[in-house]
Amino acid sequence: MRKSAEEALRTRERIVDAGVQRTSIDGISGVSIGDLAGTLGMSKAGVVGPFGSQEQLQLAVIARAKQTFVAAVIQPGLRREAGLPRLRACVRAWCRYLGDGTFPGGCFVTSASAELDGRPGVLRDAVVDLVVQWRDFLHLQITTAQAAGQLARRRTPDDLVTILNGIAMSANQEIQLLGDKAAARRAERLMLAQLDAWKPAG
Amino acid sequence: MRKSAEEALRTRERIVDAGVQRTSIDGISGVSIGDLAGTLGMSKAGVVGPFGSQEQLQLAVIARAKQTFVAAVIQPGLRREAGLPRLRACVRAWCRYLGDGTFPGGCFVTSASAELDGRPGVLRDAVVDLVVQWRDFLHLQITTAQAAGQLARRRTPDDLVTILNGIAMSANQEIQLLGDKAAARRAERLMLAQLDAWKPAG
Repeated sequence: MRKSAEEALRTRERIVDAGVQRTSIDGISGVSIGDLAGTLGMSKAGVVGPFGSQEQLQLAVIARAKQTFVAAVIQPGLRREAGLPRLRACVRAWCRYLGDGTFPGGCFVTSASAELDGRPGVLRDAVVDLVVQWRDFLHLQITTAQAAGQLARRRTPDDLVTILNGIAMSANQEIQLLGDKAAARRAERLMLAQLDAWKPAG
Repeated sequence: MRKSAEEALRTRERIVDAGVQRTSIDGISGVSIGDLAGTLGMSKAGVVGPFGSQEQLQLAVIARAKQTFVAAVIQPGLRREAGLPRLRACVRAWCRYLGDGTFPGGCFVTSASAELDGRPGVLRDAVVDLVVQWRDFLHLQITTAQAAGQLARRRTPDDLVTILNGIAMSANQEIQLLGDKAAARRAERLMLAQLDAWKPAG
């Protein structure tokens, strides 16, 4: 790669990084190009230029948030066998991610979902994709665990997806809004207890 | 009350009503006085005037959202005996409220919490108050039910608060972001099943 191309890539990365940080606190719509330019010591044209438009920059921010979530929560699970072991590893990584301030404003997807759910457009579509992919991943681990006899087969996988996502969102609110330092560990204990409650009888 | 005072009150109510509707979709920070003035066919000065400042108007919007939640979710519970009967009645009303589009953008408090959690100030404080009051109400019903032997005493009330709030937030996302029409009834079934799982053994 030529030097100038490397530099262009690095500039792009810096802008996206700053965008993720600010968006996590102020929301997708709350971050202006002017704010970002100020944070980065760049001109507004220099901030938007590498992306072509503000919307493309916002999409790049959402894509980066996804990469971060995958690295923090899904990757640790992929080192374990599919099914219940992977699900339990992801639950532990997920609660660590919620508690350790990966994003300064808390879970990026929860914030973006609440912000954009009523506003049709490509940004909302991108957040729907993230949520659906994560739900599909959880669903697959649950059905794999059921097929392996690790979780009861009579239960509806969607029910467990709803409960696990819910405990995570609740913990995110307890941490971010209420400053509850015990919330991440409580969420891990509660999620693992829900998995235990789904073990096959006998 | 004199005619002009009545009119002033009605105008104030109209502004707050429009503010709640818009805020539920665009967020507290996303609604401008100009938007509201346009919606209401009023001047910007006419919109802010009755409140003194934009922030006081925003606080009036949050207070109205609280009244709406109390009327929709808590009042139906107050007609039943404190403890498990009241908790079950509130769970049913809560899920009805999530599913019936009381606020066009979904649960007002969930949206406001995700939006404001990283932004210190009186608006954030007002949302913290709402969340804490609701958690205290749930907590009181749980401990009352435990004292009456309706729920197991060994369990930690905060755990159930986290789980019930979580299922509600999950359902809110499923309804608002994913358009899942079955989500409200699923949430009711899951919350009632959690209460059943907390029944004392034997």
